[in-house]
Amino acid sequence: MYNFNYYTPTKVVFGKDTELKVAELIKEFGGKKILIHYGGGSVIRSGLMKRVTDILDKENIEYIMLGGAVPNPHLGLVYEGIELCKKENVDFILAVGGGSAIDSAKAIGYGVTNGGDVWDFYDYKRKANACLPLGVILTIAATGSEMSDSSVITKEEGLVKRGYSSDYSRPKFAIMNPELTMTLPDYQTACGCTDIMMHTMERYFTNGGNMDLTDALAEGLLKTVKENAKILAKDPKNYDARAEVMWAGSLAHNGLTGCGNDGGDWMTHKLEHELGGLYDVAHGAGLAAIWGSWARYVYKNCLPRFKKFALNVMEVENAGTDEEIALKGIEAMEDFYREINMPTNLRELGVKATDEDLVLMAHKCAVGVGGEMGSARVLNEADMLAIFRASM
Amino acid sequence: MYNFNYYTPTKVVFGKDTELKVAELIKEFGGKKILIHYGGGSVIRSGLMKRVTDILDKENIEYIMLGGAVPNPHLGLVYEGIELCKKENVDFILAVGGGSAIDSAKAIGYGVTNGGDVWDFYDYKRKANACLPLGVILTIAATGSEMSDSSVITKEEGLVKRGYSSDYSRPKFAIMNPELTMTLPDYQTACGCTDIMMHTMERYFTNGGNMDLTDALAEGLLKTVKENAKILAKDPKNYDARAEVMWAGSLAHNGLTGCGNDGGDWMTHKLEHELGGLYDVAHGAGLAAIWGSWARYVYKNCLPRFKKFALNVMEVENAGTDEEIALKGIEAMEDFYREINMPTNLRELGVKATDEDLVLMAHKCAVGVGGEMGSARVLNEADMLAIFRASM
Repeated sequence: MYNFNYYTPTKVVFGKDTELKVAELIKEFGGKKILIHYGGGSVIRSGLMKRVTDILDKENIEYIMLGGAVPNPHLGLVYEGIELCKKENVDFILAVGGGSAIDSAKAIGYGVTNGGDVWDFYDYKRKANACLPLGVILTIAATGSEMSDSSVITKEEGLVKRGYSSDYSRPKFAIMNPELTMTLPDYQTACGCTDIMMHTMERYFTNGGNMDLTDALAEGLLKTVKENAKILAKDPKNYDARAEVMWAGSLAHNGLTGCGNDGGDWMTHKLEHELGGLYDVAHGAGLAAIWGSWARYVYKNCLPRFKKFALNVMEVENAGTDEEIALKGIEAMEDFYREINMPTNLRELGVKATDEDLVLMAHKCAVGVGGEMGSARVLNEADMLAIFRASM
Repeated sequence: MYNFNYYTPTKVVFGKDTELKVAELIKEFGGKKILIHYGGGSVIRSGLMKRVTDILDKENIEYIMLGGAVPNPHLGLVYEGIELCKKENVDFILAVGGGSAIDSAKAIGYGVTNGGDVWDFYDYKRKANACLPLGVILTIAATGSEMSDSSVITKEEGLVKRGYSSDYSRPKFAIMNPELTMTLPDYQTACGCTDIMMHTMERYFTNGGNMDLTDALAEGLLKTVKENAKILAKDPKNYDARAEVMWAGSLAHNGLTGCGNDGGDWMTHKLEHELGGLYDVAHGAGLAAIWGSWARYVYKNCLPRFKKFALNVMEVENAGTDEEIALKGIEAMEDFYREINMPTNLRELGVKATDEDLVLMAHKCAVGVGGEMGSARVLNEADMLAIFRASM
């Protein structure tokens, strides 16, 4: 195992009606002038935003609002948010929504507190020294951004999708009421479950430094999400299943399931980021569409982990060679994706890419990761292209 | 499941040589004048303290020192620490050691920042409004105090042992180098493993609000500690096993393994506190000596949980009635205690208590918990006495 840091300062307030604590929490963390950042109109239509602003009004907390965060959130809106915060002397951002709202809130927070162009951070040019404090009211269980140090932004010019991670951006608090996720379309719920599992699977399939404890926690989390995703596919209003998935979403990406290893593989995410940049597909569905092809391409280089995954997470029978068991685990995972109506290739995802598109995505991906990357297997541009082609 | 808060702001820096980061971390959290609080001479004899003070000297961080923290740390030393901190304008406490040093550091921190008698907090008379910031260099994996909100102090007069919990006392950072635990006597290592497992078992055996995810994490943690405790009983210098146990110690008591439930049972701890107050026994050994008697007294009132524990943690065969399976799980746990040379009753613990002593302990325990307490089964003074008698 390797040395590691573990830092999850976010105060989680979890359960029914917890959004009613928003003013108390903002005050606890010193917010005086708030930017409420959100996505589309669903948080307004559902009445959530009115409940929130009523409380802020009652508690005399000043706020301004900025909507419009979209999946694969755009840099243009981030710039707009930065200018708005500077003009209005905002000292705290409240993101109301899912990963899109939280991620662009983080980017706005970097932009307000660091000089220069905020894209520099996402373009690997420099590191942030601060971020505006931010809080979250989560309405979609998926990205884990509510406890994580990471955010992903898409630059419209060239559709470049990039992530940046820094402890400064970890939210001060995260309000998580599973009831707020009940009205999500089934497809988005399944995308969320996929994303959650992938955050832990990216940390699981590695060739270095794995710990028994981290593995046990990761396997427990993966099995829990798998079972509850199946429940939600049939019974979307099941509060307990919503709660299991929502809490798992935070723990899957706050660092817990990677302690002691080499940092994880992350190539499925990198490949999907190119898809997401070019086609604006749902992130979770993109991950599901890529994962099987990635897994079949790399599993022989990471056989003990794929075998362990097959036995302990997918619970396949312990019979046959290690390779056979590993392949059965990959197949079982794809069967699970089908069971929750997720795609297992680009066609099912609805992406009609030409081979030229695949070549372009592989090239952008290789440039984005600095040539080659991966832990289960180190992949170069040719490998990336081979995986994209296999996923058609 | 119930609503819950989860708040673990402690920055964990885990692995080899991490104590070398102590000055950097103290500066990060604003410490200027430090009280280094420790226990016996082992941290001095091992050379750890010199490594620490050399770094502080080099980085021009002022410090004073207070040793003498003992297992079941005493209120007298806490008072002494409070006076010293006030006199020397200390603004940060560095605890170097195990739970004893950390717990008395927390109590000192409360005493410096809140007026009045610090014992009031432990005597349930009032709540703390602040605590001096503190950091930890951990040398014993056991109490989980390095990430927890709790501390336990013993008042010499009447040997009253009481705990107090507040988020204010959660350490700012915890440096955890598993190598620092390698020189522990085997008995203390086994006591630590017992304490770690009990922190999660207290949260596991409940009659309310359990979540699948919390259970999966708890079971994974318990199995990991069980296996690695057995490794350490034979190979105490095994770095990886030390690391597994050390990290589990923090996660077992930072709140993670109780999310969503009713708060846990905690009666084994309460009963052991009376033992620890009266006989100054090692906390972990005291827990092991009580647990079996407690479990047999309560398991019928919490049968689904005892069955789940038997199957998923102790991995007993799924055959027979639920009661039979539950009892097999309790027996397997006691077998495990024997395997790592822990006592399973008061005799083996070396406590020669008269029946009058048991009556006194049960009475003090009942008073301490306000009459009755427990989740697996609510226990009153007569129940407590029955368990003490069964544990002879």
